[in-house]
Amino acid sequence: MNFLEERIMKDGIVKEGNVLKVDSFLNHQMDIALFDEMGAEWKRRFADKPINKILTIEASGIGIACVAARHFDVPVVFAKKSKSINIEGDMYVAEVESFTHKCKNQVIVSKKFLSPEDHVLIIDDFLANGCALQGLISIITEAGATVEGIGIAVEKGFQLGGRLIRNLGFQLESLAIVDAMDASTGEITFRKQ
Amino acid sequence: MNFLEERIMKDGIVKEGNVLKVDSFLNHQMDIALFDEMGAEWKRRFADKPINKILTIEASGIGIACVAARHFDVPVVFAKKSKSINIEGDMYVAEVESFTHKCKNQVIVSKKFLSPEDHVLIIDDFLANGCALQGLISIITEAGATVEGIGIAVEKGFQLGGRLIRNLGFQLESLAIVDAMDASTGEITFRKQ
Repeated sequence: MNFLEERIMKDGIVKEGNVLKVDSFLNHQMDIALFDEMGAEWKRRFADKPINKILTIEASGIGIACVAARHFDVPVVFAKKSKSINIEGDMYVAEVESFTHKCKNQVIVSKKFLSPEDHVLIIDDFLANGCALQGLISIITEAGATVEGIGIAVEKGFQLGGRLIRNLGFQLESLAIVDAMDASTGEITFRKQ
Repeated sequence: MNFLEERIMKDGIVKEGNVLKVDSFLNHQMDIALFDEMGAEWKRRFADKPINKILTIEASGIGIACVAARHFDVPVVFAKKSKSINIEGDMYVAEVESFTHKCKNQVIVSKKFLSPEDHVLIIDDFLANGCALQGLISIITEAGATVEGIGIAVEKGFQLGGRLIRNLGFQLESLAIVDAMDASTGEITFRKQ
């Protein structure tokens, strides 16, 4: 087990309905030393990529992305989520349909901050069905920029998102992939990487 | 001028209606080296305080708080904003009324992450009328924890929030206080600190 899998075993809580609560260290209270270690690991895995920008999405991706960015020495841009339609001009907008909550959300980034010169690493805390991630990829593509890779903290391997993204040929580096969880025993099965 | 005031002069844009756009380095695209310098400065200003936790609020406070937290070696908790009423149990909820948008918002933190043992530094990107900040202080007080201080990147000195918070006796350290802006000339007047 790597450092993140160990931390999930120690402090993660499995709840009914395939819910994994990691809010004590990842997405409500945040362990900055852990984020730093995650950043170092992504830097190792994406060492050969000419990354000049990190893109994440509000809210829980921002902390991880900002701490990880120190290892890449690049700025971070965070995409905004919105249910509304009225956007002031000069924004990239991707409409993404949630698989679970039958609603449409918009993912928004100002055109000022993505251009064809950008080589982007996407960072987020969770990957399940990957709707938000699809919106981010769509925006990077629309900007003419390059997706150099995707760094995820926790992937739910039993949902569709990871397979879809790998099938599309992207380098997706999830630091922990949960293949199964059992709420009655608290057991978590990680994929061997 | 300090480093943040210099950066605001260089890259901030004054718009009609007392709007200061700093989205190229502070709250949409984020300059991590700048955040690190801000963290070092807050550490200097709060050097004598026994801070063991940083509290911020989504979304644009999170990146600044997480990078600054490295200088304090403490975890960060971010409060969530919500317009909705249905909150699952065990949450601190503060209802705050916006002065500008006549609406009520909730500021929410899980009870697991604030307790009477906590000595909290609040960090956020902007302070204008201070509604969100009042909600954060209310939650810390409700938890029986101690507000050790408040670190703000940019304070709009011509709005009410800063004076109110200082009148209440809190140590409020805003790295840049804008006392006046002129959209026609682009001029920005900082308060001498």
